[in-house]
Amino acid sequence: MSDDTRHMAHALRLGRRRMGQCWPNPAVGCVIVKDGHVVGRGATAQGGRPHAEPLALSQAGDAARGATAYVTLEPCAHHGKTPPCVEALVRAGIARVVAPLADNDPRVSGKGFEHLRRHGVEVTTGVLAEEAARDHAGFFLRVDQGRPLVTLKLANSFDGRIATATGESQWITGPEARRVVHGLRASHDAVMVGAGTARADDPALTVRGWGEVRQPVRVVVSRLIDVPLMSKLASTARDVPVWLVHGSDAASQTRRAWESCGALLLPCEVSGGRIDPQALLAALGAQGLTRVFCEGGGQLAASLLAADLVDELVGFTAGIALGAEGRPGIGAMGVDRLAEAPRFVLEEVRATGADVMHRWRRG
Amino acid sequence: MSDDTRHMAHALRLGRRRMGQCWPNPAVGCVIVKDGHVVGRGATAQGGRPHAEPLALSQAGDAARGATAYVTLEPCAHHGKTPPCVEALVRAGIARVVAPLADNDPRVSGKGFEHLRRHGVEVTTGVLAEEAARDHAGFFLRVDQGRPLVTLKLANSFDGRIATATGESQWITGPEARRVVHGLRASHDAVMVGAGTARADDPALTVRGWGEVRQPVRVVVSRLIDVPLMSKLASTARDVPVWLVHGSDAASQTRRAWESCGALLLPCEVSGGRIDPQALLAALGAQGLTRVFCEGGGQLAASLLAADLVDELVGFTAGIALGAEGRPGIGAMGVDRLAEAPRFVLEEVRATGADVMHRWRRG
Repeated sequence: MSDDTRHMAHALRLGRRRMGQCWPNPAVGCVIVKDGHVVGRGATAQGGRPHAEPLALSQAGDAARGATAYVTLEPCAHHGKTPPCVEALVRAGIARVVAPLADNDPRVSGKGFEHLRRHGVEVTTGVLAEEAARDHAGFFLRVDQGRPLVTLKLANSFDGRIATATGESQWITGPEARRVVHGLRASHDAVMVGAGTARADDPALTVRGWGEVRQPVRVVVSRLIDVPLMSKLASTARDVPVWLVHGSDAASQTRRAWESCGALLLPCEVSGGRIDPQALLAALGAQGLTRVFCEGGGQLAASLLAADLVDELVGFTAGIALGAEGRPGIGAMGVDRLAEAPRFVLEEVRATGADVMHRWRRG
Repeated sequence: MSDDTRHMAHALRLGRRRMGQCWPNPAVGCVIVKDGHVVGRGATAQGGRPHAEPLALSQAGDAARGATAYVTLEPCAHHGKTPPCVEALVRAGIARVVAPLADNDPRVSGKGFEHLRRHGVEVTTGVLAEEAARDHAGFFLRVDQGRPLVTLKLANSFDGRIATATGESQWITGPEARRVVHGLRASHDAVMVGAGTARADDPALTVRGWGEVRQPVRVVVSRLIDVPLMSKLASTARDVPVWLVHGSDAASQTRRAWESCGALLLPCEVSGGRIDPQALLAALGAQGLTRVFCEGGGQLAASLLAADLVDELVGFTAGIALGAEGRPGIGAMGVDRLAEAPRFVLEEVRATGADVMHRWRRG
C-alpha cells in the first residue's frame, strides 16, 4: 500500500465516523502529513460545520506549511456559511492536496481543485476513489437525484418472519444485534418506519448506548397519520425531530394536533392508495437528508424495494423458526419472475451475538 | 494443545470425511502413533466395513507394537460381521488406546475398554469427547431413540422465500451454494423431500461433483405417493435407492407401480392427515439411517420443526427480495408465542459465492 493510499484510508476512517452526524453536508475526513508524520486530523463536525480541513489545519498549526493534505472529497471553493476551505488550505501553505474525487455539487465540482492549482498547490486525485464514492453515496444521490440513500433493515427469524401470527416480536434477535442497530441509526440522518410499525411497537427510534450523537430525525410514513398521539414519538417530538409524511387526505385536525406536539408535517403524493415511494424520498431529500435508515414495516419495505429505491440491505437472522403464519418482514411486491426481483451484492457477513448479520448493496 | 488432543483431532478429521458413507455403522477415524510419529491411519470404509482400526493397524504393520491408537469411538468388542476390533488391537501389540467416549450401543458400551484393559492395554478416555459426541450424534440418536439425526436445509431469498408466487425457484442461490449442498448430501445417509418438492422440481437428489461417493438414499414423504412415475426418481430407482414413505391409504396400484420401478415402500402412521414425523423418523431409523438431510418442502420442514425433530439447520440466503407473495420456505407451524418456537444456536456463518451460508444446531 502506498503512503498516499494509507493516509487516504486514514482520512476515510475519520470521515466515516461522522456519517449521520453532519447532514446536509458530507461527512469528510482530513489528514495533514508533513515529512511522513501526521500533524493534523479533522472531520466534519457534528451539525456539518466546521468542515474537516480547517479543523485539521488548526491542529497542524505552522507544521501545515509545505505539508500534504489528504481530504476525502474535493475541498469547497464557494462562500457558503463558512469561508471556502481551499482558501484556508492555500493560506496555511499546504503544498499538495490528495483527494479521491471531485464533489458532484455543481457549485463546487472541479472549482476547488482549480483554485488550488492556480495558487500553486499540487493536486492528486483518484486515490481510493471507489471507497470514497461509496462513503459519500448518500450526499451524491441527493445532489444528483434529489433523494437520500436508503438502507433497509430486517431483523427476522431463520424463515424470514418478524413476528408470530399474534404479533409477538420482542425479541427475535438478541441484545448484540440491537446494539448494532443503534449504531446503524447513528450513522444515518434519519430513521424511518411505516405507521403500522409505529403503532405496533410504540418505538422511540432514538440512538441509545452510543454516547453523545446527533439523534437521527424520526420519519413516520402514514397517508392518514394513523399514529396515536399517546405515543413516545409524539411526546418526545420537541426533543428529537419527528417528521410525518402524509397524504393530502389526512384529517386537518390530526395534522394540527401533531404540529402542536412539535412534529414537522410533510404532505406527499399518493399512488395506488399509498404514499408514493419516489415522492417520499424526494420530500426527504428536499429537507436535506442524505442517508435514511428504514426499519420497516413490511409494506413500506416492499414499496421501496419494488420501486428499486433500496441502496443497502442489512439483515439480522435469528436461529428461530416461526412458520408461515408468522408476519413477513417484507410485504407484497408484485414480483412474478425471479429476473424482476431486486438483486443485492454481499458486502459483509458475521456473527453478532447469537444472530447473523449480513449487509448487501444494490447489485 | 497436548499430543493426545492433537492426534485425536486428526482421527476425528479422518472419521468426519466418512459421514454419510458407512451407515448404519458410525464414521470412525483411527490414528496409530509410535514415538511421536503417525505410523497408521484409517477410517470406516465406504459401506461400513472394514472398520477404522484394522485399516490403521495394517498400515502400521510391525510399528503398531508398543504404539498408541487414537480411535474416535470405543473399539467394538462383539463378533458381528467383522471380528472385534479390540482383539485386533491386542494382537498387534498396541500399548495404549485413547478414545473420546464409550459407544452407546449396549452390545459394546464399556466392553471394548474392559477387554483392552484386561489384556494389559492402557486406556485413556474423555479426549475431545464433546467434538466426538457431535460427530457421532446421528449414530447415537439411532441407538438411543431409534431415529436418525435430521439436518434441515433452506435456500431462500433475503426475505425467507423459496420461490416466486408463480413457483419460479431456479436459481435463487448461486452455483457455489449448490456445490456446498451436494457436499452436505454426501455427508448424510439420505436426502429427504416432500411430495410437493418432488413434483415441482423433478429433482435427481443425487450427489454430483464430489467424486466417488456412496450416493445417499432418496427418501420421498408422501401420504398418497403423489409423485409422477415419469420422474427422474422413478427412472433411476434401480441405480440409487428410492424409499417412499406413505400412508396406509395410498392406492395399492401406485405402490405396486413404484415397487416395480425398484423403489422401497415404507408404510407409515398418519396423524392430522399427514405422515406423522415421529413415525417417519422411526421408520427411517429402523432401516439403518443415522443422518438424514431434509431439503423441504415447506410442509415437511414445518412438521419436523414443530415436532422438535430438527437437529441442525443449514440456511443459504441470497441477496434477492421476493416479497410476501413468494412461497415460504417453512410452512405453517402453529406457533403463537416466541417462547414456543424452536431455537437454534449458531455454529458457523460465511459467504458462499454470492450467498450467505449459516449453520445452526438445536439449542
